[in-house]
Amino acid sequence: MAPPTSSASHIVTLLLKFFNFVLLFISLIVLTTNTATAYTEDLTFKVRFNGIYAYRYMLATNVFGVVYTLLQIAFSIFHITMGNHLISGDGGALLDFYGDKVISYLLATGAAAGFGVTVDLKATFDAIGLVIDKSFYEKAYASASLLLLAFICTAILSVISSYAVPKKV
Amino acid sequence: MAPPTSSASHIVTLLLKFFNFVLLFISLIVLTTNTATAYTEDLTFKVRFNGIYAYRYMLATNVFGVVYTLLQIAFSIFHITMGNHLISGDGGALLDFYGDKVISYLLATGAAAGFGVTVDLKATFDAIGLVIDKSFYEKAYASASLLLLAFICTAILSVISSYAVPKKV
Repeated sequence: MAPPTSSASHIVTLLLKFFNFVLLFISLIVLTTNTATAYTEDLTFKVRFNGIYAYRYMLATNVFGVVYTLLQIAFSIFHITMGNHLISGDGGALLDFYGDKVISYLLATGAAAGFGVTVDLKATFDAIGLVIDKSFYEKAYASASLLLLAFICTAILSVISSYAVPKKV
Repeated sequence: MAPPTSSASHIVTLLLKFFNFVLLFISLIVLTTNTATAYTEDLTFKVRFNGIYAYRYMLATNVFGVVYTLLQIAFSIFHITMGNHLISGDGGALLDFYGDKVISYLLATGAAAGFGVTVDLKATFDAIGLVIDKSFYEKAYASASLLLLAFICTAILSVISSYAVPKKV
């Protein structure tokens, strides 16, 4: 049986979900608007975030996170105002438990891919003399950092939903 | 109070931990022995895994995973043979819960950074005409795949330890 939790704790979780949504949304905007000009000795061309596979993966995890968080916020508001889960019994707690777990892993991998690629591509581009506007890397780091913060939020939510999961023993 | 679990389930968890250790260990060997020769039009040089930051991060997460899994195996064997936790009461269950969570996040990020960097560095190197032995990328993918499998093992262990965590309500 799911333990009885106070409505105060429901509001704290809701605030955390809302903060998570804001982080993901800003990260999404920073990532998708990231374009810059690249120069080599004889060439000049545009670089966009979607030219780099890892940033596309980041985008995908971010979109999953936004959709999941919006659904979670809607369910939470329903729960607080109506006083019961949309999905009755232990189903809701289990859904939260596995959902939070999967989404937190997705966000963690998105942030890791973003950081990893930015560090190593910058090192490679510097080594071969390809100059890209510094703001391109800065925006990539900013977006990955926001995604990392959103991951930390989701990991906290995942710990909370682990405590609410019904015992099967 | 931690729920009573059968010794059969303890043996299944131990086997999973052992399998996890094997995966991590092979991934570690494949990663750290990954060297190749790179050619440009006028240069030939050695490439080692530790020239790439994301692979160093992979190595770090892998080493954390190996150490944690070895400790977990030792604790599990102690638990099965002696019939009680080394850390009495709920402490052991909580330690498993948070430990499994943190290590599974670390392994997920390690694998993600490894995959992300390999895909995009290969694309970049191909574009600038830097030829590296195909086996370099293949070994990187193999190591990241093994790390991903180890992450899946740890995620399963993390679900199991979530069920065993004492309720605080």
